[in-house]
Formats: sequence, structure tokens, C-alpha cells
Amino acid sequence: MPNNDKLSIISLGGRGEVGKNMIVIEYKEQIIILDAGNLFPEDNKTGIELIIPDLSYLKENEDKILGLIFSHGHEDHIGAVPYLLQIINPPLYGTDLTMALIESRLEDNGLLEKANLNTIGSENKTEILKLGPFEIEFCPVNHSIPAAVAMCIKTPAGNIVYTGDYKFDQTPVDSPRTDYQTLVKWGENGVLALLGDSTNSEHEGHTISEMVVARNLEESFRLIEQRIIIATFSSNIIRIQQIFKAAVKTGRKIAVSGYSMLKTIEMACRLGYIDIPEGSVLSIDEASKMDPGKVVLLMTGSQGEYRASLSRLARGEHREVSIIPGDTVYLSASAIPGNEVAISGTINLLYSKGATVIDDNKLDIHASGHACQEEIKMMINLIRPKFLIPVHGEFRHLYHHAQLGRQTGIPVENIFIMLNGDRLLLSVNKAENKGKIKAGVTYIEQGNIMEEGKTILKERKKLARNGFVNIIIPITTKGSLKGEPVVLSRGFTNHRELSTFIKESKKRIVQSLDNSKHRENFEMLERELSNTLTNYFFEKTGRTPLLIVKVEELYNESV
Amino acid sequence: MPNNDKLSIISLGGRGEVGKNMIVIEYKEQIIILDAGNLFPEDNKTGIELIIPDLSYLKENEDKILGLIFSHGHEDHIGAVPYLLQIINPPLYGTDLTMALIESRLEDNGLLEKANLNTIGSENKTEILKLGPFEIEFCPVNHSIPAAVAMCIKTPAGNIVYTGDYKFDQTPVDSPRTDYQTLVKWGENGVLALLGDSTNSEHEGHTISEMVVARNLEESFRLIEQRIIIATFSSNIIRIQQIFKAAVKTGRKIAVSGYSMLKTIEMACRLGYIDIPEGSVLSIDEASKMDPGKVVLLMTGSQGEYRASLSRLARGEHREVSIIPGDTVYLSASAIPGNEVAISGTINLLYSKGATVIDDNKLDIHASGHACQEEIKMMINLIRPKFLIPVHGEFRHLYHHAQLGRQTGIPVENIFIMLNGDRLLLSVNKAENKGKIKAGVTYIEQGNIMEEGKTILKERKKLARNGFVNIIIPITTKGSLKGEPVVLSRGFTNHRELSTFIKESKKRIVQSLDNSKHRENFEMLERELSNTLTNYFFEKTGRTPLLIVKVEELYNESV
Repeated sequence: MPNNDKLSIISLGGRGEVGKNMIVIEYKEQIIILDAGNLFPEDNKTGIELIIPDLSYLKENEDKILGLIFSHGHEDHIGAVPYLLQIINPPLYGTDLTMALIESRLEDNGLLEKANLNTIGSENKTEILKLGPFEIEFCPVNHSIPAAVAMCIKTPAGNIVYTGDYKFDQTPVDSPRTDYQTLVKWGENGVLALLGDSTNSEHEGHTISEMVVARNLEESFRLIEQRIIIATFSSNIIRIQQIFKAAVKTGRKIAVSGYSMLKTIEMACRLGYIDIPEGSVLSIDEASKMDPGKVVLLMTGSQGEYRASLSRLARGEHREVSIIPGDTVYLSASAIPGNEVAISGTINLLYSKGATVIDDNKLDIHASGHACQEEIKMMINLIRPKFLIPVHGEFRHLYHHAQLGRQTGIPVENIFIMLNGDRLLLSVNKAENKGKIKAGVTYIEQGNIMEEGKTILKERKKLARNGFVNIIIPITTKGSLKGEPVVLSRGFTNHRELSTFIKESKKRIVQSLDNSKHRENFEMLERELSNTLTNYFFEKTGRTPLLIVKVEELYNESV
Repeated sequence: MPNNDKLSIISLGGRGEVGKNMIVIEYKEQIIILDAGNLFPEDNKTGIELIIPDLSYLKENEDKILGLIFSHGHEDHIGAVPYLLQIINPPLYGTDLTMALIESRLEDNGLLEKANLNTIGSENKTEILKLGPFEIEFCPVNHSIPAAVAMCIKTPAGNIVYTGDYKFDQTPVDSPRTDYQTLVKWGENGVLALLGDSTNSEHEGHTISEMVVARNLEESFRLIEQRIIIATFSSNIIRIQQIFKAAVKTGRKIAVSGYSMLKTIEMACRLGYIDIPEGSVLSIDEASKMDPGKVVLLMTGSQGEYRASLSRLARGEHREVSIIPGDTVYLSASAIPGNEVAISGTINLLYSKGATVIDDNKLDIHASGHACQEEIKMMINLIRPKFLIPVHGEFRHLYHHAQLGRQTGIPVENIFIMLNGDRLLLSVNKAENKGKIKAGVTYIEQGNIMEEGKTILKERKKLARNGFVNIIIPITTKGSLKGEPVVLSRGFTNHRELSTFIKESKKRIVQSLDNSKHRENFEMLERELSNTLTNYFFEKTGRTPLLIVKVEELYNESV
């Protein structure tokens, strides 16, 4: 029987205010962390590559952390690890494929030696991971990457089930069904709180089965006479397996392009998650010399990512291969919100070069990895938790997950939508919001944590919109102009207008200097001149560039 | 009978390479223009508001232009007018509502007095507009704005039909059916070329009827007990009429928020395109004091536009009204590609404030204004053109329109996909691509044509990604450093790293100056220093800021 101790759950990370990507569980000054993922920025024009949770709370409580346990190997669950390890260094636990993906990431970042990596046996359901007062049990779940698990975290205060990402595919292909029996057993033993995936909570019914996708791919390949090019997520090993099968069944050889895809396939092969028939693989170069009707090119770029293989191919910038009129390009993926325009741009380029494109709007050649409404309700009914905490989703998804919880009979006061940094205090009889920890987001650029990221991003956004004007004013110690101000500007306006502005700015600088009370206080003087010129630019253009006015005492009066 | 003269058709405008938004028809040194629309930029973070076609070809041939004729009043057909009139000033022709929308736009831009505006009678089908050798006949078509027309342009070389935007709604509400009889008559008289709307050419079947939308809105409103807030396009007068009807039928009063919507409703009222029952309208202020169950707030912002009413309401920044928990918000619109993330952001905020959101994924409360595949084929079969020219769409849409043409029996060699600036030369027996005119895009910022827009945009994109570093090096005429270099930087890196960079840069500047062969050629010297420092920054960060090195002879050696 659970005792009356308190357990706290903290949701970390996320865009804006919605907690996601990382869950912290605390019991009596001891902490475990579930997953450590990243987000991708909405605006990829500002040089930011990734967004990860603010880790300062974990840094402060480093000595209490017993371990970090991963549900599966997708970016939004493991992507923060290389940065997290620069700040804290807890033991890491996950299934073989998950750990292999983390290992490869850490190797790229030179952090492998430092890391404490531990593989848990996803096949061995009876294995229990013991970390201090926490006993963690695992359950295989079906998702769009192999070796995904749900977890039951047993604590003296009660049991918590975290689903990770899952779906209930009744006819999965080359991947195990979600293990209903274990989920039922957990439910029967009593679950205090369920933390469940909310991604598809707005979608009615069930997610289509991978079997449908496999069948459609094969049937569709059979009708194509020319070359086939197909893009999917490099981590979707299960889909990649279906593509290999469909190719082999329809008498085609496969060539793979894209660093991340090659690497993941190699890893999945090594761990036995993918079976590639001997003699079915060619190099891109060999494939180019074959009858196009006997070839499938498998590549990255299903999201229109600028540097990915398919995007380079569409632009005519792929070093090894070009579009041949008559090519059929499959996008075996759905658009991640924000990528629609990039994907459509790639599709336009492919058509303009003579290819035909088949995406998941035209044919069911993609299945989501996440549970839809009927599956989410089923999960709740299997687990029968006292408290429901929708996780992993934007606010709208958490909201709809909460509604589904109410439909299954969980009282509204037992459902909690947690925002980034929220702390929920749980005991057998009660759950309550207990304030917020310091939380926010951390930006990653060029593989590094950005110091002062928020400020730099703000500057870049201003520069993107209005450019800059920098004015350096040579001055004597007494505050008289000595020589010509130097004006530098880019991205603000055209040459003709700029040269008028420069002339007029100089006039206004002379006037301001003459009238200023602050001629010997350079800081005040700069602020005064900056205001004058900002007003002038706004009056003329309706816009304000990023303006820096610098008064420089380049030489002393006495020289 | 058509003679053997040549007629040329030029497609202008468009994102990247695909012609759209403006069609130029030339016959014997005489020109008419069909529509003058704008595009919205893919990336709205760079200050660019609109993109319009490059107008230099029209400027060069200004004396040949007999008129500019509009199919309807949507932005992508009239949006370029205020900028076009700053360059050329042809007579403008359109139906009453189209001209009223143009008039209001020109009034805002202070161009009304200059403009030559002419209203054509959309109701009077027999009216023929004669411009030199061109005789233009009109045919009402059903679209998501009233008073839309297709045109048949009769020339001695043959007849051209331009559909404008249309659909074949069999049960339209408060708007006329597309006039099949006139289209058939045109077809029977012989049509050389059909220029047809391609927007929905990837969608099978028929666009749903406005009757379905009207019924769903009313039925759904009936189930809501609290306040209703509904956003749609401000130009969709027909939808706005349905919203008014549904509100009145379910016993609610309506209050309208949003400048563009208020203006369009006023215009549509005046011209008799909308019928607002007396006493059904309140001010936002009056509505706030009423029983929420008796109120509909109609507003702009269905695309998540930052400044629109619904977006401000979602952020809690609307001056007159706030979300009340229990509000139901309808988005009676579909997402224009590129707006998905902004719309989702608004939806998240609405949920987080206690509202429920119903969009067109949940209920059919929006119908597209464009023909789907069955309708496009029907248009081709009614008109029976010799040549088919898909217009108005991205390349993928033009491609699919072309495929539909082939399905209806038009030979592939008679179908032409035109890119921006392409000229197609037509005669009775022949059509051929005849080179390209100068074409591209023109950027609009703060309501003005951007001079050097392309360069400025490039600078802004660089600044957005990497920020800038500006270095001003005071030097003597002999090329010796005199005093300290001034270094200014924003958006590049954090303070700590920057101060290291500044120190090291200064060292490298001193070294370079010492070793330079170009100490008296400042331009060469700047280039040399710029290369040195660019390499240094790249080596340290993997990035290159926008760098300006300026060698300034601030004082003469002799001073």
C-alpha cells in the first residue's frame, strides 16, 4: 500500500509556456528524469538549431539525481542529451537502439567517454531498474521507431505510469504490438498518475496501421515503370524496412543517400531491428548506371530540410544524382507543422524537373506513430489512474487529452495540464499545483548552448526586420565634433535614401552637440543622439533600425 | 473567322519561377492586362509585406497598354494596383465591388485622384468592353467573394477565355451560380486558349457547397450556450452573410471587430451584396455588457495574423474585449500555406484562456472558393479550347491542371505551363514559347516599392542568421594605426566571447597592418583585413557575421 508521502512531478521544456520533452520525478530529495528531448525552432532563419529545456533547476539539484531514463530514441526525447551532459552527468538508461542512438550522438559531440550509459532489456519484461526509492518497470509499446517503451515507476508514495510515445497498432509490421498484458497488470496493481502522450488527441478514431502503409507501398511500386525515389524520416526503421521489402518484392535494388539515414540503418542492422536481403543494396553511383525501372533511391528530406538529400536533388545540387523526367518521388511522411512551405517548395521543384510526386494526401503511405482518440481512451481504461496528466503536446493537444480523460470518467479535478516548470505535488488522496521552478528555454547554435541566447535572438529579429545603422562620432574631450561622423548601414534602406539620411543625420548631430547639456557625459550624449536619430529615421521611414551611436574620443583636444 | 495573326500571352509575377497574378495579352503592339495581384512573402520576419510582379516590361511598353481588367477583388488579383499606379496609369475596369475595393485601397494610398476607374456591369451579361482590337465579354462566376467574373477576350486572331477564380457550386447561398449558359456560348463560338484557375487541381471531386457551410454554422451555433466568437476572411462577404443569418436565426446579436472587416461590410452593404437585418448589430462595447449567450463576435484573424483582432484577443491584448472561459471560437477559414504555425499558436492561446476552438478540421465550416478536379475538367469541357494554359497556382498545381486537360482529351502539345515572364505566341494553328521578357519580383515595405529590395533582403537574411561586426580602424595617411579600433557588434555572440574576439581582432589588425603591402590603398587594405577577420571568426564559431571593416583616416599625420 502506498504511504502518505508526497511525490512531485515537474514538467520541463517546451515552446512558450507548455511543458514537454522532459519530466522530473522527485521523492524525498531524490530525483529521476524521464526523457530529455529538444524542440525545433519555429523560425529557422535565425541560426538557432534546437531548443532545449532550461536546465538550471537540475544543475542546482544535481546531487539528488539518480538517473535519466529514456522511452525511445526520437529527437524530442533524446535530443537534449549532448547539452545536458555539459551541465549534469547522471547515469543514462534506455533500450539498446535508444542507447545506440544516444551513443552515436555523444560520439559526434566528443562526450562519449564522459557518459554513463546503461542498456535496459526491452525484451525482458521482468527486468526492474532500481534507482534509490524508485523501481522502474518497462513495457514494449508500438511507435514509429523500434524499441520504444512505456514505464511504470513504483515509489513508496504510489505508482506513476509514463506512456512515452505509443499507438495501439493491431497489425504492426516488423515491430511488436504494444504489450496490453503488462499495461493491464500495472493498472490492476493501482496507478496513482498516468502521464500520457497527447500528440494526436485531436484526431478521432485510430491511427492507420503500418500494414496498410506496407501494402500501399508495394502495390504502388508495382505500377511504376521508371525510377522510384522515396523520402522518409531517417529514424523510422520500421518504414525503412517496409520500403526495402516493397523494393525487393517488385524487383528493384535500393541505394541510400543521406548521412543520418545511412548511420541509422547501419545501427539498426547491427542490433537486428532491420533485415536487409543480401544483394539488395547498391551505391548511388551503381544505381545511376542501372535501368531506372530497377532502382529505388531511399533518402532523407521528407520535411524539405534545406541540406537533406531530396532537397538537394530537387534543387539540382545533389552531387551524385539528378532527377530524370519520369521519376516518381514518394514522401512517406507527414508534414511537421512549420515545414509545409519548405515541403511544398521541394514538390514544386520536383515537378518542374519532370518528376511526379506522391505524398500522404494522395495515398496512405504514412502512418503516424501516435495514438488517436480511441487509443488514448483505451490507454486510460487499461491503466485506470487516479490522476491524469496529459504530456507531450501543445496546449491544444493537452486540452483534448484532458477531455478524453473526462469522457472515460476521470473527475475534472483529477486531471492536470502542466505548463513548463509547473510542480505537481501528489499523494494517495490529493494532487495539487505547488508553484513553479525556474524554467524557460535554452537555445542551441552550431552544436553549442548559446549564452545570452534570448538577447542575441532578439537582436537578430530586429536586424532581420530593419537592418542596422551604426554611427561613430569623433569628438574632443570637451564634446566638440572633430572630423566627420562615420556612418555604416546594411539591410535598412537603399543607397539613394541612405545617402540623404547620412547627410541629414550629420546635420542633426552637429545641432544636437551644439545644444546638448551633456557634452562631457558621453553616455548621456550617446543616448540623446540616439533618440534624436531614431525619431528622425522613424519619421522618414516608419521603421527603426537597430541603431548604435558611439561617441569616440579618438584624440585628445591637446594633441 | 480568326485570321492568321499572332497573339501573345505573357504570364507575370510569382514566387520563384512560376508566373501568376498578372496576365498580359498583346496583339499588334496593343496590350491589355488581366488582374494585378500580389503574393505574401513566405518569411514575414524580414519586414517585407508584399511581393508584386516586376513591372519594367509594362513600363517600357506603357504607350501600348489599353487597359487593366480585374476578374474579382481578392488581394492576389488587385493587390499590386497601388504600386502599379506609381509606375504606369492604365484605365482600370472591374465590377462594382471589385472597383470599390480598389478605390478604397487607392484612397488609403493617396492615389485615387490619379486613377482612371471604370465599372463594368457584372449583371448585364451582354455588355461588351471594347479596347482597341480587343472585345471583352464577361460571365458571372461563383467564388468566395461576390461580383467575380470570367472573361472572353475576342481578338482578330482568336478568342481567349480567362476564368479568374471560380467554382461550380450547385447550391450557392447569397451569390449567383456560375453562368453555364454563357460559358457554353463562348465554347460554341470557338476558343483559341483557356487560361484557367489551378489552385485546387490537386483535390479530387468537387468543392463543398456554401449551403453546407451555412447549415453547419447554424446547427452548431444552436448548440452553444455561451459566447460565440468567429473569425473569417474580411473579403468573404458571402460567408459573413451566412454568419449574420446564423446569428439572427439563433437569437444572437453581432458585434464586428477589425478595420478591414468593418470597411468591407460597409462597402458590401452599400452595394447591396450583403443584407444585415435591422437591430442585429452592436458595438463591441455593447456586446460586452450583454448575456454572452446572446452574442456573436465576428472578427479578423483567421490566419493568425499578428495584428488581427482574434490574435490580439488570444494574447490578451485586445483593447475592448477578453476571452471569457466558456467562449467558443470558430475559425471559418482554412490555413493559407505558411500560416499553420501562427494559427496553431493562436489556438493554443485560446485554449489556455479557457475557450474551445472549432476549425474546419472539426466541422465543415469553410468551403474553398476554387474549383476542384471535377470542376476544372467541366470548365475545360464547357469551353473546349484548342490550347490550355493553367494559371494561378504553384508549379505543382499547374502540373495537375495540365494532367486534367490531358484527361479531357487536349493533346499534350497544346498545353502550356508558363513560368514568370514566359511569352507564348498563339495563332489559329500554332502555339509556341517565344522567349522571356525581363521578369522577377518587386518587394513592398511599409506601403512602398523597395529600391534595391533584393540586396537589402539578402543583407537582412544574413543579419538574421549571424548578426554583424563592424570595425572602424583609425589610421594615418601612411597606413599606421592611430589609436584604438572601434568594434561594434550585435546578434553575433555573447559578451564573454565577443570581448575575447575584440582583443584578438585588434592584435590581428596590428599584425596585418604591419605586414600589408597595401598600407596606402585603403580599399585593398579593408578587403585584406576583412578576409583575415572573417577567417578568424569562422574558425572560432563556424559562422561568419556580416562584417564591415572600415579604415578611417580620421586625422592627417600632419595634424
